Order: sequence, then C-alpha cells, then structure tokens
Amino acid sequence: MVIRIGLMGYGTIGKRVADAVMAMDDMELVGVIKQTPDYESEVAINKGIRLYTYDDKISKFEKLGIKVAGTVNDLIKSVDVMIDATPDGVGAENKVKIYEPMGLRAVFQGGEEAEVADVSFNALANYDMAIGRRFVRVVSCNTTALSRLIGAFLVHGYRIRRVRAYLVRRGADPREFKKGPINDVVFNPATVPSHHGPDVMTVIPTVDVVTMAVAVPTTMMHLHMVNMEFDGQITRGEAVKVLEETPRVLLFNTAFRKFDSLAQIIEWARDIGRLRGDVMENAVIEDSITVFQNELFLMQGVHQESIVVPENIDAVRAMFRLTDKWSSIRKTDSALNLVTMGKNYNLT
Amino acid sequence: MVIRIGLMGYGTIGKRVADAVMAMDDMELVGVIKQTPDYESEVAINKGIRLYTYDDKISKFEKLGIKVAGTVNDLIKSVDVMIDATPDGVGAENKVKIYEPMGLRAVFQGGEEAEVADVSFNALANYDMAIGRRFVRVVSCNTTALSRLIGAFLVHGYRIRRVRAYLVRRGADPREFKKGPINDVVFNPATVPSHHGPDVMTVIPTVDVVTMAVAVPTTMMHLHMVNMEFDGQITRGEAVKVLEETPRVLLFNTAFRKFDSLAQIIEWARDIGRLRGDVMENAVIEDSITVFQNELFLMQGVHQESIVVPENIDAVRAMFRLTDKWSSIRKTDSALNLVTMGKNYNLT
Amino acid sequence: MVIRIGLMGYGTIGKRVADAVMAMDDMELVGVIKQTPDYESEVAINKGIRLYTYDDKISKFEKLGIKVAGTVNDLIKSVDVMIDATPDGVGAENKVKIYEPMGLRAVFQGGEEAEVADVSFNALANYDMAIGRRFVRVVSCNTTALSRLIGAFLVHGYRIRRVRAYLVRRGADPREFKKGPINDVVFNPATVPSHHGPDVMTVIPTVDVVTMAVAVPTTMMHLHMVNMEFDGQITRGEAVKVLEETPRVLLFNTAFRKFDSLAQIIEWARDIGRLRGDVMENAVIEDSITVFQNELFLMQGVHQESIVVPENIDAVRAMFRLTDKWSSIRKTDSALNLVTMGKNYNLT
Amino acid sequence: MVIRIGLMGYGTIGKRVADAVMAMDDMELVGVIKQTPDYESEVAINKGIRLYTYDDKISKFEKLGIKVAGTVNDLIKSVDVMIDATPDGVGAENKVKIYEPMGLRAVFQGGEEAEVADVSFNALANYDMAIGRRFVRVVSCNTTALSRLIGAFLVHGYRIRRVRAYLVRRGADPREFKKGPINDVVFNPATVPSHHGPDVMTVIPTVDVVTMAVAVPTTMMHLHMVNMEFDGQITRGEAVKVLEETPRVLLFNTAFRKFDSLAQIIEWARDIGRLRGDVMENAVIEDSITVFQNELFLMQGVHQESIVVPENIDAVRAMFRLTDKWSSIRKTDSALNLVTMGKNYNLT
Ligand SMILES: NC(=O)c1ccc[n+]([C@@H]2O[C@H](COP(=O)([O-])OP(=O)(O)OC[C@H]3O[C@@H](n4cnc5c(N)ncnc54)[C@H](O)[C@@H]3O)[C@@H](O)[C@H]2O)c1
Ligand SMILES: NC(=O)c1ccc[n+]([C@@H]2O[C@H](COP(=O)([O-])OP(=O)(O)OC[C@H]3O[C@@H](n4cnc5c(N)ncnc54)[C@H](O)[C@@H]3O)[C@@H](O)[C@H]2O)c1
Ligand SMILES: NC(=O)c1ccc[n+]([C@@H]2O[C@H](COP(=O)([O-])OP(=O)(O)OC[C@H]3O[C@@H](n4cnc5c(N)ncnc54)[C@H](O)[C@@H]3O)[C@@H](O)[C@H]2O)c1
Ligand SMILES: NC(=O)c1ccc[n+]([C@@H]2O[C@H](COP(=O)([O-])OP(=O)(O)OC[C@H]3O[C@@H](n4cnc5c(N)ncnc54)[C@H](O)[C@@H]3O)[C@@H](O)[C@H]2O)c1
Repeated sequence: MVIRIGLMGYGTIGKRVADAVMAMDDMELVGVIKQTPDYESEVAINKGIRLYTYDDKISKFEKLGIKVAGTVNDLIKSVDVMIDATPDGVGAENKVKIYEPMGLRAVFQGGEEAEVADVSFNALANYDMAIGRRFVRVVSCNTTALSRLIGAFLVHGYRIRRVRAYLVRRGADPREFKKGPINDVVFNPATVPSHHGPDVMTVIPTVDVVTMAVAVPTTMMHLHMVNMEFDGQITRGEAVKVLEETPRVLLFNTAFRKFDSLAQIIEWARDIGRLRGDVMENAVIEDSITVFQNELFLMQGVHQESIVVPENIDAVRAMFRLTDKWSSIRKTDSALNLVTMGKNYNLT
Repeated sequence: MVIRIGLMGYGTIGKRVADAVMAMDDMELVGVIKQTPDYESEVAINKGIRLYTYDDKISKFEKLGIKVAGTVNDLIKSVDVMIDATPDGVGAENKVKIYEPMGLRAVFQGGEEAEVADVSFNALANYDMAIGRRFVRVVSCNTTALSRLIGAFLVHGYRIRRVRAYLVRRGADPREFKKGPINDVVFNPATVPSHHGPDVMTVIPTVDVVTMAVAVPTTMMHLHMVNMEFDGQITRGEAVKVLEETPRVLLFNTAFRKFDSLAQIIEWARDIGRLRGDVMENAVIEDSITVFQNELFLMQGVHQESIVVPENIDAVRAMFRLTDKWSSIRKTDSALNLVTMGKNYNLT
Repeated sequence: MVIRIGLMGYGTIGKRVADAVMAMDDMELVGVIKQTPDYESEVAINKGIRLYTYDDKISKFEKLGIKVAGTVNDLIKSVDVMIDATPDGVGAENKVKIYEPMGLRAVFQGGEEAEVADVSFNALANYDMAIGRRFVRVVSCNTTALSRLIGAFLVHGYRIRRVRAYLVRRGADPREFKKGPINDVVFNPATVPSHHGPDVMTVIPTVDVVTMAVAVPTTMMHLHMVNMEFDGQITRGEAVKVLEETPRVLLFNTAFRKFDSLAQIIEWARDIGRLRGDVMENAVIEDSITVFQNELFLMQGVHQESIVVPENIDAVRAMFRLTDKWSSIRKTDSALNLVTMGKNYNLT
Repeated sequence: MVIRIGLMGYGTIGKRVADAVMAMDDMELVGVIKQTPDYESEVAINKGIRLYTYDDKISKFEKLGIKVAGTVNDLIKSVDVMIDATPDGVGAENKVKIYEPMGLRAVFQGGEEAEVADVSFNALANYDMAIGRRFVRVVSCNTTALSRLIGAFLVHGYRIRRVRAYLVRRGADPREFKKGPINDVVFNPATVPSHHGPDVMTVIPTVDVVTMAVAVPTTMMHLHMVNMEFDGQITRGEAVKVLEETPRVLLFNTAFRKFDSLAQIIEWARDIGRLRGDVMENAVIEDSITVFQNELFLMQGVHQESIVVPENIDAVRAMFRLTDKWSSIRKTDSALNLVTMGKNYNLT
C-alpha cells in the first residue's frame, strides 16, 4: 500500500517533508500547494514536484512561466492525507475550511494548538497513540527534542520525576531576513513555564516538565540546557549508553573530536553531505552529560529546520497502520540516511 | 581619612572603577597606569586623570602629545592600594612582581584565580570577610550577580539548599571587535559545572551551586535562568519583596512596563542618563519570578561591563576598615546614583 | 521669544528631540503625545515632561498610575509648532487629520515622503530654504549625513560633480528586538539607486548623487563608503581641513587613536559622558580620506538614533526666523554639548 | 595522464578542494596532511581520504584510533604537486621548507603574498599565464570574484577604464566561533585602497581597481557593491547578456524570484542539493545591474568558503598543460555540478 500525500505549505518544514516523502517507498508525493511563484517553486519543479495553487493565483505562476499542475481542489481529491506545514494557526483554519469538509486526514505541525488534532505526536515517545487517528499533530522542534530525550530514558525503563529545561532559541531561520533580534536576548516568554514544558506533557503526561526560554541572535540551532531528576539512581555511564543506542540521538564530543559549538555540528553535517546540512537527530554534547546524585545535566543542540521531519513520516505510518513503531522508525531513519549504526531499533 | 588609590589597567572595568573612585569622598584617584596612547588615554586626561606608564613607553605617549604624569614606580609610591583591572592572569603576575615586593595592598578582579587573594568578595554576601585584608578579589560579573541574588535571600533569613543556574553569556564586550561568535552558540564550557558555580561557593560556601554556561553573539548583558531550591517554604510575594528591598537588585516588568528584552533594560539606562548606559544592579525580570513548591525560578540580566564596579569600592572600604558593611553599600550606591529608593540598608 | 513645542511620537527620535528642546533657551517643550503607558512614559515623567494622549487611552495610563496632563487636543491648542516623530507615513496622516485643520505648523522626519513638507531640510546645506516655512521635513539619518558631507565642501567653495555612496545600514535600532537580519546581508533595495541618492538631491539639487544600500546585523551606526568626484582639484590636506572645521563633522583616527570600528566610536561617546552614548556628528574615519586625481574617497559612521536631532532644532529656528543659519547651528551645538572647539561657525 | 595531488591543510578551503579533486578524472588525491585528530579527520577517512601527518603527531592520531597512512615525507614523495591550503603565511614557509627543497610544484591560496608564486591566477582572467608554471597562487575569494567579473567583460571585448568596488566582508567563516565582530562594522582596513584592488591588478594589470572594505557580523558571504567605468558604451541589456553567458557567474533575481538577501542565495544552494550549500559562482543580483552613461553598477555575493575551489582545479591543469583554458573551465564546472546551461565555453 502506498499512501498518497499532499503537502500544504512549502516553507522551511514543508520542503524538507516533501523531500523526505519522496525518499519513502510506501508513500507518494502527489503534489504541494504553493501560493507564490518564487525561486522555491522553481526548485520544486526541478525536483519533479507537481505544484498546485489557489484558483486566483494560477495566472501569477503562468505569467512567470512556472508550470502549475492544478488547483488546491485537484490535489485534495487525489490524496489520502494532507501534511499541513503552513504558518502557526493556518493549519487550524485549513482543517475547518478544507480537511474536515472534504473528509480528509491531516498531519499538523507544532505551531498549531494541541486541540487541532486527536493526538500530539512523537515517534519515540508515543507512536502507538497515533495509530489509526485522523488528525495528528507533530509537536514543535523544541518539544520533539525534549520528548525524544525523555522518551529515550523511559523506553529504557528509567523513571523520571521532573525535568527542568532551559531553552536558548535561535532568533530566526536562516532565510528569514526580517526577523531579529540582532544584539539582544529576548525573554521568550518572560513568564515561567514557557509553553514548551506543558507541550511536552501533551506527549508524555507522566513527567513533570518545567521550561524557561530566551531567544538569541542566531539562525543555527536551539540549545537546551537540561536537568533531569530521576526517580532512582542512574550513572553517567548508563546515561551515555542510553543515548548512544537510542535512534535519532547523536553524541558530539568536544574534548577529542573538537565540537566546540553548534556551528561545528552543522559544519559536520555539511561535510558529510547531509542535504541542506540538516541534522534531524538530537545533538547531545557528550562532555556535558553529568550526574550528581539522581540528577542528570546535559546540553543538546536542536536543528529547528529539520528535526521534525522524521516524525512527520512516522505519523503517517501510524495513522494508516502501515507498520509498528520500531519498524517505522528504522525505515524512516534508513531512507533519510540518518545514523543507524549502533542504534537499537528493538527497544521496549 | 582619604584612601589614595592607583589603578592598573584602564579597560572595560578599569575606566569604570576610575570614574567611581572619583565620585567617592573617602577616596582619591592618584592615577592610572596605561600602556598605549590611544583615545582612551585622551578621554582619561580630559577627565582630569593622571596617566602613568612603564619607563619604556613614555616616549610613545609623548610622541602623540599625550601628557604622562610619571612612571609606574612613581604611582606606586604615592598610593595606599592598587586596584588591578588588567586582563585575566596579569593581576597575579603584578602581585608577585610589584605589589608584594613593594608591600602594597591590592584589589583584584574575577579574571584572577581565587588564590590570588585572601578572600573572594561580594559586598552583600561577605563584606565582613574582607575587613582588614591585604589582598581582596572582587569576583567576576556572573559570580557577583549570583552572589547578590543568593545573598539577598540569605540576609533575609531564608535557607537555600541548592542553586542551579544556566548562563547565557554575551560573546564579547561592545568594543571588542575581534571576538565572536557571530552566528553560533558556544559551549562555554561543554562540561558541567562551569567554573561559575564553584566560584560562587568561594563567596558563599554554604550553598551548593551548579552552573552551566553557553556564549552567544551579543555584547549587551549576560542572561541567567536560575532555579533556587529552598530549605523550607517561600511564596512568590515574599520573593518579590526580598528582591525589591535588596540594594543593587532591580525588578524589570515585562507585562506592564514593556521590558521585553535585555536591550530594553540598557535602553532604559541610556534614557535616564546613566553614564555609558551602565546598569550596575542585577536586572531581575519580575514576570519570571515563579515559585513551584520550594523552588524559585527567575531570569536576570547581568551588565558585565559595570556590575562589579560598586563592589570594587566596597572592597577598599572593608580592607581599610573605613565603614561597616551597610554604611559602605549605601554610601557607594548614593555616590554612583544607583536606585536607593525603596532599598533597605539595615538588613541583617 | 520662546517657541512652544509639542512632540508627537516619543520613540527613538522623539525622546532625543524632547531632551534637545529642553536644553534650548528659546524653546519650551509643552508636552509629548504618547499612546502606550510603558517604561518610556515613566522615564519622561521623571524628566518632568508632561504626557498627553488620545481620549480613549487616558484610562490605560491611569490604570498603571501614570499621570496624563491632557488630551492630544489640549496639547495642540497650547503650542506654536508640532515636531512629528511618528513612524514612516503616520506624519503625513497627522498632517491631514490634525496639523492642517488646526492651522498648526509642523516639523516632519525623513520617514515621510518629501511631498509632506514645503522643504526638505539640512541645516548646513539649505537652512535658508526653511526660513518662514510652515512644514519642514528633516531628512533621514543617511540623507542628513550625506547632505552634511557634501554641504561641507560646498560651503567651502568646492564644486562637486558627482557623489556615489555605498551604504551599509544597521539592521535595527538597539531596542528593536523583532527586527533582523541576524546572519545576513539584505539588498536594501536590490535596485540602483537606492532612495537615498534622490533624497539628498531634494536638499542639494545641484549635485548628482547615486547610492546603493544593504542592511547588516548591527544596531550601532550606519557605515558609508563615499566617492566624491570634484569639479576641479582638491588635495587630501584640503579635504581634511574642510572636515576638521565644519560643525557636526568629527574625524576619528585609526592609526594613532585606535578607532578600529564603529563600536569604538560609540565607546568614546559613552566614555566622555554623552547622553545615551549618542554621536550627533558625522563620524568620518580620518585614515580613509584619500584623494586620487579629482576623486575623494572616505568612510563615515552615521549614528542613526541621534544624528537628526540638531537639525530638528535648527528647523524650528528657521521656520520662526529666530536666528540666521550659523547662529542657530552654533547655538544648537553648544546647548547639546557637541564638539565646537576648532569648528568654524562663520562659513560662507 | 592523471596528476597525483597532495593537500596541505584540510580546513575551510582544503576540504573543499579535496572533494573537488576527487571529482576529477584527470587528477588523483593521494592524501591530505592533517595536524589534529578531530571530527574533520574522521569525516575525511569516511570519504576514503588517506591522512598523513607530521612524525611527532602520529601517536596523537593513533591514540584516538584514527588511522594515519604515513608521514608528510611519505606523501610528498608520492605526488606531482601539492595544493597548499594552510593559513595565511604558512604556505610561504612550506615553500621554503618543503616544496623548494623537494623540487615539488605547488598551488598556493590568496592568503599568501603574490611573491610566493610565479603568477597570481584566475581561470577566466589569465589562465594562460599559469601554463607550465611551477608555483601558482589562486587569488583570494574577493579577488577571485572581482577578477571573474572584470574578466567577463574583457573576454567579451569590452574595455574597462576603472573599477571601484566596495566590499562588505563576512566577519568569519561559519565554524570559526572565536572570531567577531558581533555588533559592529570594522574598518578592514581604514585606509584606501584596501589590498583587494591591487591584488586584482596582479591578475588583471590593465584595469585600475580601487577597493574599500569593511567587515560585518555575518558568516554567509561577502557582498560587493561595484562601480565599473567603461571605456566606451555599454547598455544594461548587454551587461546582463555578458553575465548570463559567462561561466561561474549566476544571476539572482529579486523582483520575481524573491532573492531578497544573501542568505536566500545560500538557501537555494541548500535546497538544490549543493554539497555544503556551497555557491562556487559569483552571485550577481540581477536587479542591481544598472547603467548610467558609461558606468555600470551592480551587487554581487561572494561565497568565501567555496568560490576559489574551481580555480584550484584549473590551476593544476594549466601548470601541467593538461588542457586549454576553456576546456578546463568546462570540465571543472561539469564535474562540480556548477550551472553550465546557457554558459558559453567558447569565449575569446
Ligand atoms: N521553522 C521551524 O523552526 C519550525 C520547527 C518545527 C515546527 N515548525 C512549525 O511548522 C509549521 C511551518 O513552519 P515553517 O517554519 O515551515 O513556516 P514557513 O513560513 O517557512 O513556511 C510556511 C509556508 O506556508 C505557506 N503558506 C502560508 N499560508 C498558506 C496557505 N493558506 N496555503 C498554502 N500555503 C501557505 C507560506 O507561503 C510558506 O511557504 C509551523 O506550524 C511551525 O510552527 C517550524
Ligand atoms: N569585561 C567584563 O565583562 C568583566 C566583568 C567582570 C570582571 N572582569 C575582569 O576584570 C579584569 C579586566 O577585564 P577587562 O574586561 O576590563 O579587560 P580589558 O581588556 O578591557 O582591560 C584591561 C586593560 O589592562 C591593560 N593592561 C594589560 N596588561 C597591562 C599591564 N601589564 N599593565 C597595565 N595595564 C595593562 C590593557 O591594555 C587594557 O586596557 C579581568 O580580570 C576580567 O576577568 C571583566
Ligand atoms: N530610528 C532611526 O534610525 C531614524 C533616523 C532618522 C529618522 N528617523 C525617522 O524618524 C521617524 C520616527 O522614527 P523612530 O525610529 O523614532 O520610530 P519609533 O518607532 O522609535 O518611534 C515612533 C513613536 O511614535 C509612536 N506613535 C506611533 N503612532 C503614533 C500616533 N498616531 N500618535 C502618537 N504617537 C505615535 C510610537 O508609539 C513610537 O513611540 C520616522 O519618520 C523615521 O523614518 C528614524
Ligand atoms: N576561508 C576563506 O574565506 C578563504 C577564502 C579564500 C581563500 N582563503 C585562503 O585559503 C587559505 C586557507 O584558509 P582557510 O580558511 O581554509 O583556513 P583554515 O584555518 O580553515 O584551514 C587551514 C588548515 O590548515 C591547517 N594547518 C595549519 N598549519 C599547518 C601545517 N603547518 N601543516 C598542515 N596543516 C596546517 C590547519 O589546521 C587548518 O586545518 C588561506 O591562505 C586563506 O587566506 C580562505
């Protein structure tokens, strides 16, 4: 069975999900919906992606000689599910205006409220909750990274009492030239907890998660400083082993391998030939992993542009009952050329 | 009694300490030692500050028409104490080469190891430890801010079990044009704890302090996200009251007064006419003060360029037994035009 | 005669103009119009400035305990002229809705189209054109800086055939935390000429000015790289002399005085005690002044936040025929503590 | 004939040249010399690159389990030419210490003085000057970009009298986390001309080139604002056509294709799957191409990390007389997957 997928919104997330869908043998990208005929449209067409647009925008595309395959309606009638990667809040509108009336299933992104979907999703942490669902929300980049991190220990049988995470967020994505800040640290928000803690708890309700967040003038990756309070003992060695064998988590070593900063993690991804220099895995700083009594401290880098891509794929598999959790995770990771060596896909 | 002060190093910290000393009626700035005849030398002279330099550098100054009052030796013979604000590690060399041989007292900065001095100093937290000492180290900007914060609760009789603080450090001071990073978050260091936690414990040995730190591309202020675990109860209202009445701590409100970021705290300082736009107080974000059970969360901004200035003044008073702790703090704050309204100078 | 002034808009430009007006003995700041009761309102009140607001906003101020002196209408009836420092385009609306109907005179800023006023104004370049006018537009920061630079040579009798200027614009003002770019150079605009060249020609129609502009991730100052083609000869020595004696132009030397970057020019302003660290003068890099045949090359820094402030004051004097050009420039410079030593206020 | 190549220095430039050499069928990468066993060493080995190091560093590599193929001496004896991509000045030392004594040929980079080599090289502008030479210097990124731009018009038969170029340099490469500036524009240098103008004239001595340069807080690309004075007429249409058909020059359109900034050019390269998101071509902003009389204005982006890579390949071909100029350029461009469509490889 090949699931026919339509994509709404071809921005930072959308274009990556499009490439990922095209790399899967159990999915087919029928087309993407674009509103503006810009260089991203050209790139899509050169990749063999069919563009669809709103009726009143077709002429704009044609005027610039960019071929449109049809209207939004045309696309919608040819797909089994829509992956919606429009800006925050637009997905919810699309649900009411398009997906529900048309009886379409949909995957939403983390910029939507949890209520938009039947379940908030992270593959490692709660794949099974999405099985057979109509509307699934893949949680945001920060929430995905925290869910994976907590999930890694949970699937290994550890119990966690409380997580306090401190988020240093990138101010904007690389191509967003109007967004700041430039020379500033922004309280994002000034209140505690930031929305991320409660958001993680939509995926993992059993752990108490408190987060604080600020935004800084970088475009690279978010940086998390995490404190996890275990219910019971854990050693540093155990923690390292858990992270080493958990899929979608990578360890970056500073002392020997000289990863001194987030930019160097991206440099590595560029050097090894990752498309767009993307790092879809949590990038945990190995040297930072420290245990004091029952508390684990660590830092991780979160590549906001790409980290949710694998989860979008897995969400579709769960919704259509294509495979079980670990088969899906493994299949996605292989197809996307993530690091699979040393990873354990037979957990829990 | 007027203490005669010489200053070694006229950079970010030194020039501010110079201005501060000149504002005190119980101290006299005899002169500062400069190595290079640049615009900062001109500024000093225009402020009526006498410049001294090394024998072999006098001609460099004269060639550019910058008047030198004498040599390092000349200055040293005319002072009761040297405040050393040279770069990290140079102070320790100066101690061995100059201060000890000449029987001179000295104040050092936080870039030196704790061992350089008899005591690591923060006015609020351990003024009395410096009374009568020969060598005192004013701890670094981050350590000063954490010591004040913890000290505020201690002088109000609260007991604190543990502090975990997450530091988002500015990458460089405004005028340091060669230092980065530009678009990066640097693990600073990658290991846990960063040196700041142990450094706070040189001032306040009774509280367990763990810190993690990263550096980001800003020049403005450091940002701390702090978690304090109390031994016993505290309410949000109590915490706010403690901070409101503690000298050298200011509350900045986001919701009503619209302080959305660190840059706006500096904007305020510029607007009210603070010299150089300096904020010598801890800048606590009022909205972030949150209590969960016995844990207090908050954010604070730390103006690295100026926050240690008042402590340099108080250190001198303690060393020469000029006044007691609270008299010194009050006297310094008034002379430097810090916020004194609503502050309680009769604590403990 | 004391001119009674009202100020509309109390942001980056407005608050500086307010302080400047208060420093003049021939002007009185009756009050400023504010829309939001934030920390800037508190600062204004602490400076003794009366706040006025729109009828429907009074309660918002009162709720936060910020005293309002009256409504917009109240202010308007008590002034001779309004200085409008609202965001781009709002000034034009205010003209139609308020100033013209009320028969009020007004000074506008450079964010408005030239058509908003009877004349586009720069004190050095065309003071006399504003004499007696009702509506005057003080041109933007970049245009002001270029007008002064070109004006400096014109008032010294040089003839200039063509100016080509390349603008490296700061991305946002220090407190604007939402504006970028972060790690990018933005074509601002991609077309040639940028609006600045034609805008300079609204002030100096006799010189052909072509400009190109990009925006970069700084908040400090604009940087201009300028090429001036003279009609006839000029030597480097002459050029230096012209700039040395022209008011509102300062030379910053790199080789000896160690001004290596724009941040160090601001550092100097902070160090000498300029309010807010402002530099209202053109900051010409002395070392960059170079003559090849009849072409002069140079770099200048432009402090966007403050450079237009003196011109706002002079504009009022011209409109009300308070003094002649050079008397006004000298009076403004003295009152604002700009550098007057070595400046020639008897030019042309 | 296959040229056997050794690489000295595996940093920003070196690692890209290594990948490029491996893509050529007339060259063989024998190995690269590394000093430090870091993540870049691992990446190299995973690409199948043999590592060589200095005798005294072998154990450092072995301790971390990184396989070394031999010593510097071993490598040197097995190659026809060394490409030296060490930091500024080290190449000149290597020449004296290694290449000359061993009778080895070498390609140097633009960080070396022109005197290090027999010729300063740009493929488009002076390929033939390097034919048969022993030591060739590929000029720096900025010089390469200007040489290509001027060369493009020269090979089309236009005559250029003078070029004035204004360089907005990126402050550091993405992975250089210690280099700034952060919130500053640095005079780089303060004097006119910057070294770039004279450097272009080592390649193209017949055109007078004056440059000014500043450095800004970005890591992306340099931005040039260029003014070219033609000897004779040129129309905008002609200029566009010249650039369209010249290899290694790409036009990026803002108005229709929405390239608003340098970051979006890199975004495009990432999206189309360029390794590391590199743009080895000059990125000319089409909308900026403007002609006033005999003067052409334009902006171009220069991807400092990769732009000199093709020239390193061509330099080898010229030195060993492998092919003629246009055959080499075409062969390099095809192998590196640069844009070849629409390009004219039969110029002059
Ligand atoms: N960028 C990130 O860091 C990131 C990370 C994780 C999750 N997310 C979430 O992913 C979602 C998408 O974010 P993004 O960063 O990709 O945004 P984006 O702005 O890069 O892309 C959104 C795209 O949707 C298009 N669009 C807008 N309205 C549309 C409509 N009505 N129909 C069709 N297309 C429309 C826009 O033109 C744009 O191309 C949001 O929910 C966001 O919160 C973003
Ligand atoms: N800048 C900060 O954020 C900050 C904050 C708190 C504490 N500190 C500490 O304060 C100390 C000074 O730091 P800074 O930022 O002012 O440094 P700085 O580099 O701005 O100034 C140091 C000055 O000392 C001068 N100097 C160097 N060697 C000298 C010598 N042998 N004799 C005389 N002068 C000499 C330098 O020329 C320079 O002017 C350091 O210990 C630092 O760790 C700095
Ligand atoms: N910031 C600069 O670099 C700069 C330099 C030179 C000229 N200018 C020009 O000066 C003008 C003001 O710019 P700014 O940077 O000070 O803007 P700003 O946004 O800092 O300040 C504008 C102020 O006007 C207030 N305002 C908006 N609408 C209003 C209304 N209807 N009534 C009363 N107040 C209102 C806003 O609340 C704000 O406080 C613009 O024309 C701008 O182009 C700005
Ligand atoms: N980065 C750019 O933007 C750029 C652009 C064009 C030209 N260049 C020029 O290319 C050259 C290399 O610059 P880069 O940016 O690649 O530098 P880099 O610092 O990124 O790389 C230099 C490499 O050489 C190694 N190295 C240093 N000394 C060595 C030695 N003795 N033996 C072996 N290896 C040694 C270093 O470890 C490093 O890996 C310089 O001449 C530079 O001016 C750089």
